Amino acid sequence: MSDALVEAVLEANRALPAHGLAALTWGNASGIDRERGVVAIKPSGVAYDELTAEDIVVLDLDGTVRTGSRRPSTDTPTHLVIYREFEEIGGVVHTHSTWSVAWAQAQREIPLLGTTHADLCAHPIPLTRALTAEEIAEDYEGATGTALVEAISSRGPSELPCALVRGHAPFCWGASPAQAVEVAVTLEEVARMALLTTLLEPAAEPLQAAVRDKHHERKHGARAYYGQP
Amino acid sequence: MSDALVEAVLEANRALPAHGLAALTWGNASGIDRERGVVAIKPSGVAYDELTAEDIVVLDLDGTVRTGSRRPSTDTPTHLVIYREFEEIGGVVHTHSTWSVAWAQAQREIPLLGTTHADLCAHPIPLTRALTAEEIAEDYEGATGTALVEAISSRGPSELPCALVRGHAPFCWGASPAQAVEVAVTLEEVARMALLTTLLEPAAEPLQAAVRDKHHERKHGARAYYGQP
Amino acid sequence: MSDALVEAVLEANRALPAHGLAALTWGNASGIDRERGVVAIKPSGVAYDELTAEDIVVLDLDGTVRTGSRRPSTDTPTHLVIYREFEEIGGVVHTHSTWSVAWAQAQREIPLLGTTHADLCAHPIPLTRALTAEEIAEDYEGATGTALVEAISSRGPSELPCALVRGHAPFCWGASPAQAVEVAVTLEEVARMALLTTLLEPAAEPLQAAVRDKHHERKHGARAYYGQP
Amino acid sequence: MSDALVEAVLEANRALPAHGLAALTWGNASGIDRERGVVAIKPSGVAYDELTAEDIVVLDLDGTVRTGSRRPSTDTPTHLVIYREFEEIGGVVHTHSTWSVAWAQAQREIPLLGTTHADLCAHPIPLTRALTAEEIAEDYEGATGTALVEAISSRGPSELPCALVRGHAPFCWGASPAQAVEVAVTLEEVARMALLTTLLEPAAEPLQAAVRDKHHERKHGARAYYGQP
Repeated sequence: MSDALVEAVLEANRALPAHGLAALTWGNASGIDRERGVVAIKPSGVAYDELTAEDIVVLDLDGTVRTGSRRPSTDTPTHLVIYREFEEIGGVVHTHSTWSVAWAQAQREIPLLGTTHADLCAHPIPLTRALTAEEIAEDYEGATGTALVEAISSRGPSELPCALVRGHAPFCWGASPAQAVEVAVTLEEVARMALLTTLLEPAAEPLQAAVRDKHHERKHGARAYYGQP
Repeated sequence: MSDALVEAVLEANRALPAHGLAALTWGNASGIDRERGVVAIKPSGVAYDELTAEDIVVLDLDGTVRTGSRRPSTDTPTHLVIYREFEEIGGVVHTHSTWSVAWAQAQREIPLLGTTHADLCAHPIPLTRALTAEEIAEDYEGATGTALVEAISSRGPSELPCALVRGHAPFCWGASPAQAVEVAVTLEEVARMALLTTLLEPAAEPLQAAVRDKHHERKHGARAYYGQP
Repeated sequence: MSDALVEAVLEANRALPAHGLAALTWGNASGIDRERGVVAIKPSGVAYDELTAEDIVVLDLDGTVRTGSRRPSTDTPTHLVIYREFEEIGGVVHTHSTWSVAWAQAQREIPLLGTTHADLCAHPIPLTRALTAEEIAEDYEGATGTALVEAISSRGPSELPCALVRGHAPFCWGASPAQAVEVAVTLEEVARMALLTTLLEPAAEPLQAAVRDKHHERKHGARAYYGQP
Repeated sequence: MSDALVEAVLEANRALPAHGLAALTWGNASGIDRERGVVAIKPSGVAYDELTAEDIVVLDLDGTVRTGSRRPSTDTPTHLVIYREFEEIGGVVHTHSTWSVAWAQAQREIPLLGTTHADLCAHPIPLTRALTAEEIAEDYEGATGTALVEAISSRGPSELPCALVRGHAPFCWGASPAQAVEVAVTLEEVARMALLTTLLEPAAEPLQAAVRDKHHERKHGARAYYGQP
């Protein structure tokens, strides 16, 4: 069971540079096996093209390393907070993808301007609050996870599959590591479209609400009819 | 006859990611065999690199599936409205290509700023009207087709080979699926050039009318002299 | 002799899509053999990856086809005007490369903002005047060549290795087809840098004149010391 | 010993086009062997894909060529000034990478807007002062090195791993040629993120100081915990 988890996490990490979402070692994907209560995650600072199954670190939900001789990603506490808070999440992806980062650095949520966004999520992509000096000093990565949880807790991770950490970059999640990667790909394209739209038309209006809901319902929930049965 | 149609539609769909026009499963191409009265189209939500001839769905012009075990693209009713309205159309392509989407999300037609645009079409690229709440609730995809037909009906599909659906993305058409793909490639580049021009010079003037007409006539109509005889 | 010319022109045309300067069939390269008085050029509307030596059209300087069964590029009269006016030119390239086109469509010359530009040329990249209705009606492509000649005649083609045709796109030239391709690659990057600079800082000042001249002289003229002896 | 140096410099130069940092022959990497007191650098104007170990030029720190039949990069005096001033530098990279050049041409330092920048360096990326007419006339490349040294001397090359030459382009450095390449890759992405952020939000605020310092300390210095031990 754990092997399947490690393979899925390895594949998700390798997908990040393949989709143009991560340069050098910037970005990490993780997955969880809820039955065994273990999380697998990328080791810190290892190049994607050198990554093997042996490098993937397996930990408890409290952060104790179970297998692997590598040091896990420095962002591991952020991933763990998200897994502990939301039972339905099976994979988490963090990248510094360019256009999403531009919105995070501008400290603005991504407005819902078109159907590509509505296909992903029916709300603007939220931005986390600023952390306090105490949070940063005491448990920076854990507090980042807490801020992400706060940013999406009113609607939950199914309705909000990603968020931007203020001044930093996006985190994405889904039922599996592969689904979290797909969210990351979509978010980056949505961020690019929204930024270009806003440069062209700073007063661009949000997508008509009825189209937004129609598009979202085509892909998500009980009335979905997108894809194969 | 149908096999040639399926092959042409398969090839047109595979061309979309090859030209950078579609990520993941966003975009679909179709074609029609007017003699047999059948349309072939991409199945919904299937990845381009997994697509085979068996996956292509063949339907009547009223939407009844004739062959194929897959569910057709959710955008099928939009394609069918276009085929029913304009006899001269042999292929239709829908993408969420980035720069065209930026204009659609800005809810602006694409102005005719240069000869690259004039080589494609002698008019601004039109934008569809907003749909009504009733249209969205009752037959969203069909109404999208109706709005596209309205947007181009004054000039017809030969003079207007593509249009932007407001808040959504482009649809393109031509005498064949391959020609519709070529329109989609050209439109995306025209959209990119126009957006960059507009950012550089918000008051950019339309292309001189005599140059516009000259360029268009070099490529289209009885006096064309572009290409090989 | 003519074979070497055809090979050089074939290679220059294939280089255009390889450098990202031309999509579909948009762009053409030519070369001249001054001793024999013949020009070789791309055929009109033929895809780059299907182009063979047999497709290249060889013409007299007055436009009479000497060898080749293809119709030459529609832009051939523009190339011929340039060759007839400037003896020192051995190759001409025309593209619709994106960022250069944005300046041409904005109807603005490209200001000299940095050393990358100065390495190419010590002046802003000029923009042609508008053509008259008569010029467009009677000899559009020839008049385009005339306008290019006018735009650079005060300094000549060595000091001005390229220019933008208003509302259209760039033409580039050099001692050979390969050198004209290199100018086209450099111009496109210079256009991109200048556009991004102008968006960031609309009041950006031209490059300091002493640095401009120093950089230009490092690469060009009697005091050049760039490259290998 | 010298062979290892030449190989490292060869590899660093080849990495520039591979990372999209250099077109044609624009850019050069060098390295130093402090024990032997020799610097190895790219030859001037040679294409990256034709570069071999024999082409790499080895010089003294005063610029006297020790081995190699090629003329060294015209930017060699700039590299040498940097090596002579800062003992801790083992490699230097100069590129004309697009987004960094846009900041250099806009004559603006790159503000610290996010954690990607803080991971590289805890300060804005500095811009050199303008050179005087005398400096340009007498020793342009040496004076460029002097201006770079001045721009970073208050903090030193460990705290400031790169700088922009006004109106020109970036120089980057590190403990080795490979590390200087990594700085160049990171700088270009930081420049792109900062430019897009500034276009989206001209009044974007710098990254919160506590987050900036935390991120920087995760990767650099005695309290670093990023990467493998």
